[in-house]
Amino acid sequence: MAIVLGANQYGKAEVRMVYVDRTTPVHQVTDVNVTSQLIGDFTDTHLTGANDLVIATDTQKNTVYAMARTGGITSPEEFALRLARNYVDKYDQVTGARMAVEQYFWDRISTATGPHDHAFSKGTAESRTTVVRKDGAAETVISGLTGLVVLKSTGSEFWGFPDVEYTSLVETDDRILATAVSARWLYTSSDIDWDKSFTAVRNALLEEFANTHSLSLQQTLYAMGKGALEAVPEIAEIRLSLPNKHHFLVDLGKWNLDNPNQVFYAADRPYGLIEAAIIRDDAPIAPGVWEGIAAFI
Amino acid sequence: MAIVLGANQYGKAEVRMVYVDRTTPVHQVTDVNVTSQLIGDFTDTHLTGANDLVIATDTQKNTVYAMARTGGITSPEEFALRLARNYVDKYDQVTGARMAVEQYFWDRISTATGPHDHAFSKGTAESRTTVVRKDGAAETVISGLTGLVVLKSTGSEFWGFPDVEYTSLVETDDRILATAVSARWLYTSSDIDWDKSFTAVRNALLEEFANTHSLSLQQTLYAMGKGALEAVPEIAEIRLSLPNKHHFLVDLGKWNLDNPNQVFYAADRPYGLIEAAIIRDDAPIAPGVWEGIAAFI
Amino acid sequence: MAIVLGANQYGKAEVRMVYVDRTTPVHQVTDVNVTSQLIGDFTDTHLTGANDLVIATDTQKNTVYAMARTGGITSPEEFALRLARNYVDKYDQVTGARMAVEQYFWDRISTATGPHDHAFSKGTAESRTTVVRKDGAAETVISGLTGLVVLKSTGSEFWGFPDVEYTSLVETDDRILATAVSARWLYTSSDIDWDKSFTAVRNALLEEFANTHSLSLQQTLYAMGKGALEAVPEIAEIRLSLPNKHHFLVDLGKWNLDNPNQVFYAADRPYGLIEAAIIRDDAPIAPGVWEGIAAFI
Amino acid sequence: MAIVLGANQYGKAEVRMVYVDRTTPVHQVTDVNVTSQLIGDFTDTHLTGANDLVIATDTQKNTVYAMARTGGITSPEEFALRLARNYVDKYDQVTGARMAVEQYFWDRISTATGPHDHAFSKGTAESRTTVVRKDGAAETVISGLTGLVVLKSTGSEFWGFPDVEYTSLVETDDRILATAVSARWLYTSSDIDWDKSFTAVRNALLEEFANTHSLSLQQTLYAMGKGALEAVPEIAEIRLSLPNKHHFLVDLGKWNLDNPNQVFYAADRPYGLIEAAIIRDDAPIAPGVWEGIAAFI
Repeated sequence: MAIVLGANQYGKAEVRMVYVDRTTPVHQVTDVNVTSQLIGDFTDTHLTGANDLVIATDTQKNTVYAMARTGGITSPEEFALRLARNYVDKYDQVTGARMAVEQYFWDRISTATGPHDHAFSKGTAESRTTVVRKDGAAETVISGLTGLVVLKSTGSEFWGFPDVEYTSLVETDDRILATAVSARWLYTSSDIDWDKSFTAVRNALLEEFANTHSLSLQQTLYAMGKGALEAVPEIAEIRLSLPNKHHFLVDLGKWNLDNPNQVFYAADRPYGLIEAAIIRDDAPIAPGVWEGIAAFI
Repeated sequence: MAIVLGANQYGKAEVRMVYVDRTTPVHQVTDVNVTSQLIGDFTDTHLTGANDLVIATDTQKNTVYAMARTGGITSPEEFALRLARNYVDKYDQVTGARMAVEQYFWDRISTATGPHDHAFSKGTAESRTTVVRKDGAAETVISGLTGLVVLKSTGSEFWGFPDVEYTSLVETDDRILATAVSARWLYTSSDIDWDKSFTAVRNALLEEFANTHSLSLQQTLYAMGKGALEAVPEIAEIRLSLPNKHHFLVDLGKWNLDNPNQVFYAADRPYGLIEAAIIRDDAPIAPGVWEGIAAFI
Repeated sequence: MAIVLGANQYGKAEVRMVYVDRTTPVHQVTDVNVTSQLIGDFTDTHLTGANDLVIATDTQKNTVYAMARTGGITSPEEFALRLARNYVDKYDQVTGARMAVEQYFWDRISTATGPHDHAFSKGTAESRTTVVRKDGAAETVISGLTGLVVLKSTGSEFWGFPDVEYTSLVETDDRILATAVSARWLYTSSDIDWDKSFTAVRNALLEEFANTHSLSLQQTLYAMGKGALEAVPEIAEIRLSLPNKHHFLVDLGKWNLDNPNQVFYAADRPYGLIEAAIIRDDAPIAPGVWEGIAAFI
Repeated sequence: MAIVLGANQYGKAEVRMVYVDRTTPVHQVTDVNVTSQLIGDFTDTHLTGANDLVIATDTQKNTVYAMARTGGITSPEEFALRLARNYVDKYDQVTGARMAVEQYFWDRISTATGPHDHAFSKGTAESRTTVVRKDGAAETVISGLTGLVVLKSTGSEFWGFPDVEYTSLVETDDRILATAVSARWLYTSSDIDWDKSFTAVRNALLEEFANTHSLSLQQTLYAMGKGALEAVPEIAEIRLSLPNKHHFLVDLGKWNLDNPNQVFYAADRPYGLIEAAIIRDDAPIAPGVWEGIAAFI
């Protein structure tokens, strides 16, 4: 029996960067959080502390900034791929790379004379995500969004569940349905119109959330995933993690008040959690491709 | 020498409530966080644990829900005033009340067939706030907003500061200026068109942030406050707390790369913090009116 | 009518510093978060953006580090006073200063051969705080602690409250009492054995929390404050803000299970909030001394 | 081509429970956060919203409370196994379960008369974790800890790394090394003395962190993992995710001040991130056993 080093990766996490495109007086702002990690022949530093092969995490941070300067950022996916290829192509000891980018949104401020050239206000808590894995020549792109909080004030039911041990929930044919959408989808290639695909998936998710009359959050989740796959042929699989953010109808009966679905208590914890993958049955999905991706909890 | 009870207040904090106006099929959603506190003759419970006069905090929670049901919520201010008056009018031992309401925003989801009747997505981290104090007959309303994160990618300078002990900052005539606006303003009355005033203050703040060519964040702050006072005669004073969310230009010189205000490191801490009150010099502002209001840190 | 600048302050917030005392091989670690703010004649920068008098916030950050190097940190209070005096003494335009320090605790790691010389593990979420205000020659020191979470699994009752409109709470003679202590106390001087006083106040708070049979959280709060004042003559007033972190007994009756105070649901929100000042009736407490201190919410 | 349902799970997340053992007047408090998820034949609810087979997430919440009442909580692992077996044994449609438990620590309050019987203060941010997976008869237990923040004020070097493109980091032979330990380890069986094993792993991690003279965080990580495997034969693999919480030495040279490793800036982001698995090369580790476990980012 021996104790040995297994899977490992290292790098710089959460490199916060704002990139300003000043090509015209109407500036564009790209706000990202980049986590860079390298995979390869790094046994020495683990066993002896010899760092000859270790591209310092500080160097990885500098590389994020320098490659933004030299090539800009057209999309999180393109930038992450460029970073990953840089390392795997350049250094023998680097056999793989994992680049994660999270993008935050900014809106142009509306002023009395129209949208401002260079003043912005921060958007919602939603962010756009991508995780690019490069293992030798193989490239995997899993993109997504998180923090998209949505709510339907009607059009949601939940009934027909079995009355088993420890069941006390009452059936309802009208409830608030609310969730914070976390989605991750697997692209079939690393040569995609990334922005167009992102927008199309996002629109499909929102459209289905809004328009599906819900009998369970599972049903809504499946409709959302199916809608995304139908709208965007270049994705092979989508994984959704949907907390059921409970809004409980307040019982005012003690004081002879009814409550026709008007007054709700928005609960923090616990919450339901519904998670599923929706896939194309003919898509070539490599085994292990989701490993290390926090798609489900 | 004796030890005695001084100022005190008690109640229920962070009653999370979603109120759905279902008057028409086009629902309206009001999402609030209510903190209710009572002030008065509560010495007994402190000294002996006798609770005869203590309106239970649980009762205060129920009252929030019940009064939403009976009277709706037309604005945070109106709702907070209604709650405060309820207690002071109804209970002899309650001489004062402090009701704080924070409101979160939701946007209607746009679908292929237009804005949805009853599906919403959560807005930005900005929230609208109010703190209503009622002391006997006197009513004070201090409203505000917080979490409004804004950024200018140019139009901001900082130079001319003295080179004193421990100064190393370099002057700049072009920097990113970013802040998270926290504002509180004091109304001159408790009979106001609350929504109209809120919108007018908010628009003034954004307009001045965007259009003021900034020589210091102090200058921008003052312009924002002045703009608000000019736009909304029914406010007597506004207090602004503006963190200077530093975006540092990354120095790429070591690698023979310039950086013409394109690539920035978005720092977390420390941050500058600029705070000031802007007031009408003829406004009757009662002493102590800001006590217990977290307008500055 | 004119619009004018009112109260204002500015500086650098949350300067995160770890100071290592290496006088002997047994290192001491002091981990602090310093917020430095200056008050004085800063009208120009607000009105015109002229910064001639503005000690840059970056300079304030450097000063924190430099003064730690030149004088060490014997206590948060001593360090804050030293910083405040530095500015008021040195610069004509600086008439006042407000220095806030938050200190985090580290424990020495126990190894097989005893406590380690230079390896530490981070303590609880409790932190020690101080806010020093200097206005000309006058100095005010308000210290405290926050994040001290405590719980009693019995020895707490709540009954005898009036059954008024919207009351539904059931009386109990045995409940969990839990809170996160936030305390701020006002020292009578700025020449104190700071560490000794801090420890004495803290011990008194814990002793009274543990040993007071509670009939209301108000009663416990008052006992804690009274205990602190009795133990530490050099404090004139203490303010406590105690959230009632509800632990609700789970009703298992539907399944013929009793629950003799064993299984509790730890709720997040809403929570009770009990706040009070306990004072010495003969202590000279200057009016306005608590202004701008977040002692109550 | 068809769109189909892939992997899925659902349940109730973050059931916050405090369990009080009142067997003797010296109470024991167990504070846990339980996330319960079921896996099985739930296609119907996704495709049609038919819920006949859906054990409601509310029922899962009730089950957590009821099973704590009926069987107590001797350890997170034992409780999670009991929950998992309950569902898989009882319901045909439930083929698997995933139970995650996080435990928070409380210390007994020391009073003048000794440790208190029933008064506690909350421990550090460290928590003990377990994730139990049951798939039919197969049971997997992966336990861990998270939030254990540690720091060495000396005994850490970093040099010898290659000077490649975008490298600017300076070598050091004395730095602060600080991290927040997140560890997950795989047990070889589901019949273990859980508390004893947890304590032994934890002690080994701390001992190696403190006593390893560090040439890289990778080396420290490996020593910690190796130490744990050597100390605890019943674990087959341990995964460590160690952020390098940078403490940068402040350069005071501009003001003719040296800084002999005394004054450090504690940075927030970015941070290094070092992650590796340490394994026994003869341990039978089933493929896929780490899937869905957030051991690395």
